[in-house]
Amino acid sequence: VSEFELLAEIRRRLAAEDKGLLVGPGDDAAVTRREGFAVTSVDAVVEGVHFERRTSPLASIGHKALAAALSDLAAMGAEAGEAYTVIGIPTDLDRDGCLEILAGLEALAGQTGTSLAGGDITRSPVLFLAMTVAGHAESLEQLVTRAGAEPGDALAVTGELGGAGAGLALLTQPDQVSELSPELRGALEARQLEPTPRLAAGRALAAAGATAMIDLSDGLGADAGHLAAESGARLEIDAETLPLAPGLGEVAAGTGADPLELAVSAGEDYELLAAIDPDRFETAVAALGQLGLALTRIGEVVAGEGLEIRRPGGGLLEPRGFDQLRDSSPG
Amino acid sequence: VSEFELLAEIRRRLAAEDKGLLVGPGDDAAVTRREGFAVTSVDAVVEGVHFERRTSPLASIGHKALAAALSDLAAMGAEAGEAYTVIGIPTDLDRDGCLEILAGLEALAGQTGTSLAGGDITRSPVLFLAMTVAGHAESLEQLVTRAGAEPGDALAVTGELGGAGAGLALLTQPDQVSELSPELRGALEARQLEPTPRLAAGRALAAAGATAMIDLSDGLGADAGHLAAESGARLEIDAETLPLAPGLGEVAAGTGADPLELAVSAGEDYELLAAIDPDRFETAVAALGQLGLALTRIGEVVAGEGLEIRRPGGGLLEPRGFDQLRDSSPG
Repeated sequence: VSEFELLAEIRRRLAAEDKGLLVGPGDDAAVTRREGFAVTSVDAVVEGVHFERRTSPLASIGHKALAAALSDLAAMGAEAGEAYTVIGIPTDLDRDGCLEILAGLEALAGQTGTSLAGGDITRSPVLFLAMTVAGHAESLEQLVTRAGAEPGDALAVTGELGGAGAGLALLTQPDQVSELSPELRGALEARQLEPTPRLAAGRALAAAGATAMIDLSDGLGADAGHLAAESGARLEIDAETLPLAPGLGEVAAGTGADPLELAVSAGEDYELLAAIDPDRFETAVAALGQLGLALTRIGEVVAGEGLEIRRPGGGLLEPRGFDQLRDSSPG
Repeated sequence: VSEFELLAEIRRRLAAEDKGLLVGPGDDAAVTRREGFAVTSVDAVVEGVHFERRTSPLASIGHKALAAALSDLAAMGAEAGEAYTVIGIPTDLDRDGCLEILAGLEALAGQTGTSLAGGDITRSPVLFLAMTVAGHAESLEQLVTRAGAEPGDALAVTGELGGAGAGLALLTQPDQVSELSPELRGALEARQLEPTPRLAAGRALAAAGATAMIDLSDGLGADAGHLAAESGARLEIDAETLPLAPGLGEVAAGTGADPLELAVSAGEDYELLAAIDPDRFETAVAALGQLGLALTRIGEVVAGEGLEIRRPGGGLLEPRGFDQLRDSSPG
């Protein structure tokens, strides 16, 4: 596959209708004009580390790479703007394969109002995607960092947890789980393969007064720990309040996993964890309800440091970090 | 090497003193405020494709990855702002090795006034760096694309050509060239390992009225072709006017290469090619002279399409593209 021909094909397909995008793909750099503050994040996925072509369709690889990057913008409460894609292409991936990855990216970009503004393609011994996303906010008050959680705040999480981990288990050990409807199986696999960045929810939570937010990419255990550290506070979570994805129990039973462990440590759910003044919690619930998304109270912020996740009936969950889980995962 | 520990160490070292950088490394995303227009480019380097650890010190790998990305901002005439780094780390690169790469990045960032605003670290079977750089311009008139060259414009190139290619030949075939002083050898190797993005020159050329610019990353032959295509014009270049890097002739003689071929096809010189109204050429020469940089007239823009590089004494140079050259290079 010739780098130049493929770039030309990709550029032809990226006919942006974005008035803020003044120079798009095909020049030395993209030129944009946006009001206010720029919010930028980078995120990379590597074959064999974050995905396997055996279990991920190519379009899903593109979708998920962009979703993971946009999820960081969601966790700031920012509006999505542009995305820039670096693709490292191994020799066993042909032109059509590259375009399938791009199709997955494009579809999610379209759904989220993100312009694909530029990119770079290189040969590589391993397939990888490095995404940069730029978002925007008119004022700093619209943005929420990881650092503002205060003792007394409620802790809340959007949507459902454990679905992506259950989906990975289904994809890598498809014969282990028999007690599951095709609908639930498909929904859980989709949570793993094509996650949804919670952009509108992030803006709604920011508007409702969230004091700190983080997206759950590495798992609640790891990410809640980051939020606690950046905020200089302690988080206490009751595991029995966690909103578990439908079907998680069946998958855990079939694969011999602990469902709470999957919900807390498997990661990749790309839901948002937010700290919020308890007096404003119901307002936030109503705002997310308008988006068709649940907001579940799972614990609170207290003085101190660190993180505690209490098992139902006593004892603590010891969340494993991303690295450990990945090292031991069948993928 | 633990991803989290390394990220924490890196963040500790990135104490930015940039008033436009409101949220730096360590949150879900960076937050910046800059006036005017944002100019953004991405660029990736992969071990075995763009560099070899055998011939590139780790700090040089970091330097060059950032330099190549900043060179795209230079070619737009933009001011450098922030950089975001994705590093894929193989198991045979330890924590100190990662920090050496970062030290090379940091040093060039300091020299160019670029803030390292964020990044991502991942395990990878192969070492790679994907850089995103964001630059800025107060008005669109300060920026120059590849598309504005007009028939009648002069074509000019900054600095010297062929140095990076000669440097690569010296690094990969060190015993082939004996007729070269240690100073020249060091200078040519530095052109290959630690190129200088022509940021100030790009702004000066834009201010002097350049109608189109591109940076010479893939070689004059390939990059002039891009400028011709984007401008819808034909470029005619006299190879005997090309400013060849001192020592290029000796390296070419020692390695059996054609010096003009190296100057036109080897690439990675990261000089700028500009089209400019001939009446403004002397102004541009004077402006670049203030920066200690030569500006050499090498040809002209005419009506038509494509690119012609005339050999001294007759005949045409057939520049090889980046892919072909890399495929046949000893690296």
